[in-house]
Amino acid sequence: MSETVESTDVVIVGAGPVGLFAVFELGMLKIRAHVVDSLDVIGGQCQALYPEKPIYDIPGYPRIQAGELVRRLEEQAEPFQPRYHLGQRVEKLTPREGGRWLVETSAGTRIECAGVVIAAGVGAFGPNRPPLAGIEAYEGRGPGVGVHYMVGRREDFRGKRVVIAGGGDSALDWTLSLAEFAEKVYVVHRRNKFRAAPESVSRMRALAEAPESGVELVIPYQLHGLEGRDGNLDAVIVSTLDGETRRLQADALLPFFGLSMNLGPIAEWGLRLERDLITVDPATCATSTAGIYAIGDIATYPNKLKLILCGFSEAAMAAHDIFSRVYPDEVLHWEYSTTKGVPG
Amino acid sequence: MSETVESTDVVIVGAGPVGLFAVFELGMLKIRAHVVDSLDVIGGQCQALYPEKPIYDIPGYPRIQAGELVRRLEEQAEPFQPRYHLGQRVEKLTPREGGRWLVETSAGTRIECAGVVIAAGVGAFGPNRPPLAGIEAYEGRGPGVGVHYMVGRREDFRGKRVVIAGGGDSALDWTLSLAEFAEKVYVVHRRNKFRAAPESVSRMRALAEAPESGVELVIPYQLHGLEGRDGNLDAVIVSTLDGETRRLQADALLPFFGLSMNLGPIAEWGLRLERDLITVDPATCATSTAGIYAIGDIATYPNKLKLILCGFSEAAMAAHDIFSRVYPDEVLHWEYSTTKGVPG
Repeated sequence: MSETVESTDVVIVGAGPVGLFAVFELGMLKIRAHVVDSLDVIGGQCQALYPEKPIYDIPGYPRIQAGELVRRLEEQAEPFQPRYHLGQRVEKLTPREGGRWLVETSAGTRIECAGVVIAAGVGAFGPNRPPLAGIEAYEGRGPGVGVHYMVGRREDFRGKRVVIAGGGDSALDWTLSLAEFAEKVYVVHRRNKFRAAPESVSRMRALAEAPESGVELVIPYQLHGLEGRDGNLDAVIVSTLDGETRRLQADALLPFFGLSMNLGPIAEWGLRLERDLITVDPATCATSTAGIYAIGDIATYPNKLKLILCGFSEAAMAAHDIFSRVYPDEVLHWEYSTTKGVPG
Repeated sequence: MSETVESTDVVIVGAGPVGLFAVFELGMLKIRAHVVDSLDVIGGQCQALYPEKPIYDIPGYPRIQAGELVRRLEEQAEPFQPRYHLGQRVEKLTPREGGRWLVETSAGTRIECAGVVIAAGVGAFGPNRPPLAGIEAYEGRGPGVGVHYMVGRREDFRGKRVVIAGGGDSALDWTLSLAEFAEKVYVVHRRNKFRAAPESVSRMRALAEAPESGVELVIPYQLHGLEGRDGNLDAVIVSTLDGETRRLQADALLPFFGLSMNLGPIAEWGLRLERDLITVDPATCATSTAGIYAIGDIATYPNKLKLILCGFSEAAMAAHDIFSRVYPDEVLHWEYSTTKGVPG
């Protein structure tokens, strides 16, 4: 873990629409922000789960695709130069002197700040981890080896034997992509039907029929176990429903079983919760702990509506309350956006 | 006053951005709405005062002109077929049986409804009335005669002697326009400088130099008094700062001294107020009177921010609370806009 501690005014946990708009609202009050998200792109659910789904209830947009909304909000936040820390989860919040907080992420990023705004939606998205005994020992073993739930650089898999598990778009896209680099790509799926773009399915089947491609379909099989020593993966064991097994010699396993959501470490921060949601004062979005705010779907109060547009309003309220923490000696001189504009 | 009473679910007082978005939010819950506004166009301040001013803090719009925002919100509300009653002010709210309300406007429109949402911004816009003794007696005397603050049909002023007071764009635009119809147009202004488009000023001065135009500049004069009998205007008396007076024989006076805002009749409805704002429960936007809600700039609660985006959120909260008044026997089955869409 890095010893470097960065410093800013506010850390926003979650880069979904509401977190992005919080950057804007804080920025309008001259409050700088860093944003941490467990996904490796901004936009939260809107980007990760349904970027092309139309949304009808964003005020002023009779219809907008979720991904387009994210791009607009990113552009709106941009003049305030947020720092994004993506692909990492906030693990720990520790109080520091003077009411400040230290935020630590799963990637070792450490940021000291005056306030934290939790805009984590339904919690951190994480990959669904297959229920294989001892799988943790093979995670985080370095580039191209062991178990990976995301592919960073394809180059890492050059010359490697890779097992890809799953039958959706991610599994197929990475099969097609890594076939160019890996020595061998096994595609393990429980049935001979894929929930993916037909074009991708055809291309994969064509590769599988050309032995020199290195692509082999292992169907109908499911993941059964892992073999290796001291975290070094040797083989992936797969089995049919009838109990027939195969041993696939492999350097890496890439399971693509979708994303799941969970509150994750947020549950450990001592905030007052109500059924996995964070209780806030509706007038300020302050949680039960001074300096920590929650907005958007993860925040709750009487009559709370889980609407993006309500999260936007909560972002404004939290920003205004945080102002006095960041600038304790200043009075907030309110100006309308029409008067002031935003920095060029 | 008409004896016809219309019936709907909700009457929204004010057709500004927040009132328009309330149409959408109510519509999504299958609640029909009528909208009343004192202006003769929708959009409130955004449309009437600064349609071309850029706004920077509408979520998802890094920059949007106020008038454009109004058009987008109108389009978003449109599928729910709101009825607009424009150019009239809500004068009276009267409780009816079963917790319903009767809304009466200055134009004699009468609407019975289950709930009222006041989204009146800073109150009704009204023309600034010059402080002339007995001026009320000359207002509303019919087309082309007496005191008018707006011009409906130019034809009404054909052959009339008209006094136009003021030095801004409205005064000049109507001088140029009515010169084609009226027998005589006096332009009364306190100094020989106009706050209007230079092109309009040049055209007016050119007319004033051509005696056959009927346009005469009466400068530097101010309105001093009115002469007439039984509400029939005979002459407008004007004076200089030195006390010199002139008597202008006239059928009509058109004062153009800008718009003012005032709470108007809303102050008489028995709602709990706090410095000319309506106190609401922030969780529902309900006022102190059952069935009456207030949202947007006219509503107040602890830590209230006067931002359009907060008004949007308040519109959603009010709509959800109103649901049980409109459909007392139904449970609100919540669906996201992405699931349901809007009526075609």
